[in-house]
Amino acid sequence: MIKPRTPAGVLELLPPDQIAFQRMLDVIRRNFERFGFLPVETPVMELSDVLLTKSGGETERQVYFVQSTGALEKAGEGLPEMALRFDLTVPLARYVAEHEHELAFPFRRYQMQRVYRGERQQRGRFREFYQCDIDVIGKDALSVRFDAELPAVIHAVFSELDIGAFTIQLNNRKLMRGFFEQQGVADPSLQAMVLREVDKLDKRGADYVRETLTGEGFGLAADAVDRILRFVEIRSTSHADAIATLDRLANDGEVNDALVAGVAELREVLELVRAMGVPESAYALNLSIARGLDYYTGTVYETTLDDYPQIGSICSGGRYEDLASHYTKSKLPGVGISIGLTRLFWQLREAGLLGAAESTVQVLVTQMEAAHLPHCLSVAAELRQAGFNTEVVMEASKLAKQFRYADRAGIRFVVVLGDDEIAANKVTVKDLRREDQFQVDRAELASTLRVELAQPAVRA
Amino acid sequence: MIKPRTPAGVLELLPPDQIAFQRMLDVIRRNFERFGFLPVETPVMELSDVLLTKSGGETERQVYFVQSTGALEKAGEGLPEMALRFDLTVPLARYVAEHEHELAFPFRRYQMQRVYRGERQQRGRFREFYQCDIDVIGKDALSVRFDAELPAVIHAVFSELDIGAFTIQLNNRKLMRGFFEQQGVADPSLQAMVLREVDKLDKRGADYVRETLTGEGFGLAADAVDRILRFVEIRSTSHADAIATLDRLANDGEVNDALVAGVAELREVLELVRAMGVPESAYALNLSIARGLDYYTGTVYETTLDDYPQIGSICSGGRYEDLASHYTKSKLPGVGISIGLTRLFWQLREAGLLGAAESTVQVLVTQMEAAHLPHCLSVAAELRQAGFNTEVVMEASKLAKQFRYADRAGIRFVVVLGDDEIAANKVTVKDLRREDQFQVDRAELASTLRVELAQPAVRA
Repeated sequence: MIKPRTPAGVLELLPPDQIAFQRMLDVIRRNFERFGFLPVETPVMELSDVLLTKSGGETERQVYFVQSTGALEKAGEGLPEMALRFDLTVPLARYVAEHEHELAFPFRRYQMQRVYRGERQQRGRFREFYQCDIDVIGKDALSVRFDAELPAVIHAVFSELDIGAFTIQLNNRKLMRGFFEQQGVADPSLQAMVLREVDKLDKRGADYVRETLTGEGFGLAADAVDRILRFVEIRSTSHADAIATLDRLANDGEVNDALVAGVAELREVLELVRAMGVPESAYALNLSIARGLDYYTGTVYETTLDDYPQIGSICSGGRYEDLASHYTKSKLPGVGISIGLTRLFWQLREAGLLGAAESTVQVLVTQMEAAHLPHCLSVAAELRQAGFNTEVVMEASKLAKQFRYADRAGIRFVVVLGDDEIAANKVTVKDLRREDQFQVDRAELASTLRVELAQPAVRA
Repeated sequence: MIKPRTPAGVLELLPPDQIAFQRMLDVIRRNFERFGFLPVETPVMELSDVLLTKSGGETERQVYFVQSTGALEKAGEGLPEMALRFDLTVPLARYVAEHEHELAFPFRRYQMQRVYRGERQQRGRFREFYQCDIDVIGKDALSVRFDAELPAVIHAVFSELDIGAFTIQLNNRKLMRGFFEQQGVADPSLQAMVLREVDKLDKRGADYVRETLTGEGFGLAADAVDRILRFVEIRSTSHADAIATLDRLANDGEVNDALVAGVAELREVLELVRAMGVPESAYALNLSIARGLDYYTGTVYETTLDDYPQIGSICSGGRYEDLASHYTKSKLPGVGISIGLTRLFWQLREAGLLGAAESTVQVLVTQMEAAHLPHCLSVAAELRQAGFNTEVVMEASKLAKQFRYADRAGIRFVVVLGDDEIAANKVTVKDLRREDQFQVDRAELASTLRVELAQPAVRA
């Protein structure tokens, strides 16, 4: 006898949670499609030489390789032929480069699939997790206007997911680079090191960070450090405040081209975000947002839940210069975002933010005695025809037991067909959510349930 | 520069095909849920010792093993710790055994995920493919009545997929076993060998098969072989014919218990299939259907497209005695079916049976000049609010080019906003499917499109 168990680091769900997870996937997919993004799926395994062009040592260490039994047996030197994708960006780059001449640009795609990373074992860290990505890829060029669509998508997705107030935070890498250059921090890797120190503000406090940056290792001027600390603490409080802040930055004495370009991009993005109907409470300038420094080149996004900042960013991304330089000579600039749904789901569940799941099953047709079964099946067929997800009790048992099952499973309507009901061509319906019971003509069952479902979801 | 390419044996789709594929997945999921099946997803990788308990040499040779870089480096003897699932049945067995005390039985689950097999390279053979499975698992026992639900699900799924007339073919392993025992073929492995010969009927003809079975290797009596050949050619032509055939078999002289039991099961299944509203043209008795002989123990199903028999079975399954004997002492009988969707999709496409895909994008909002963009974005926001999947042209270009894009992408409605329209608060809509054009008030755009969409889909 083998003990049934899953590998460490995967999130396997029981049906009620799986239903809740599936509903989140559906909401995300629906909103991605609402904004004109097209579906793409790629194979879980890629050829190792294709997958690992980009990755440095750290990523490589996290890669899972795939070998058939035959390949294992004759395993020689070198890496196995195939590996599991560790994100959806490398497969996108490969896909776009491979199918470049069959795609229309700007190419908008969404992809919602699992990715794999050999993470160290730790609570809340997953080796298999869903990413839900959208990207717009241009050929040769891509207007910054596209950067404005993504916050509108993020807003639509998280509004419908209904997991509380959130803020989409925007910054721009050109603006950051320009500003840091003005403070005498021109070298990109030095900028990265400074930002890493700045990141410790919350934990260690301003004095500690100031001391480090003016100290031996960095040796920055005290007033430059003060300006940096003031800069990274900027958060806009409204649309007008964001625009005013950008104006101030662009007119703050001698400013360089990068800063001016970054300010102009951010301003255009913010104005279009507003034109798309995103309420100003849902977005803000946050000049501390940096994201992957060696990858993003313009707009960057993070999204946080206002009441649960400790969850961190629930949707991040940005603008990049060239998607697929390892696979094609074509220049393919793009902008994209990613939702790590498995981790988000787990965190929401841990925080008690997932409501009690209602089953996908809407109606349970009970069975009082075996002779009734054909009648039960035919009522169920009518309900399904009318679009209701309907389960039939296939083996008669005590009615109380059937009700208990429906209640535990989260099934809202229970249909009872006794001899009296069958003789009168009626059905008795119990609405477990409203704790209500009524009898209707069989012919009117579906339309009655439809009316009930349309009522606001308030408990009696 | 690395050549962008996928591993051999995977099916990667361009967006129009991916949309068609996704629609099939949605139809299948919707119908699985309509019948009260609950969603389950399992990790793509399972622990090797858990996954490979059941499999003999052949399956093992087709397994893909998974190793992180770290594990590769210290690879010792024995199999790698993890492997990719090769079907959804073993993961189901593991899942049900692992979560036995948290599930309600009979447990109805659906699962639609990709599985992996190291198949030899061959056109139309896939190493990664979707399976869409449903199973009902009982604890200790499971009434044969559940066997009747699956043909109803199959009928609902393939009716809505709308890929042509199909027939669900039923047989019963007990009936077969009983019949073969009566012909003096009692040993199960001998039965399997006889069935393998019988399978050659179409290719080699009755004379060849008769000669083989009466010949040295088998040595069956000529009249027994004749009875076997008549038996496996039985196909019912209607519900009444199926029932009459079963009656004839049950009353054909001295019959053994297995045959009587099989006939009784099949009769009950057929009567309930009819009670569930499945039209009798959609199902038939086919006494040649055997399926996996060492696995199925009662009802077995195959489904074929009436006009494309060469595609083979598009949905198969059956009743099994015990799902998870390797993982638990509990007896878990079940009944299930599986659709191999990747292969089916590929075959339908090869046969030219997939219609031209309409995009998921329903409306394209064009842009005549950059100054109009905020206006375009706000019209698009209204359309999305009303539930329309809407793409906005973010960079102005010639209108003809924008129309060409919509046409190629399969987007039905194109919205034009010129200076005149904006001044009059109107929009011009071109319906590319009906080759029709009209102007409406902006406030009535969504309701007008909704009416258009509700019209029957006939080309002008």
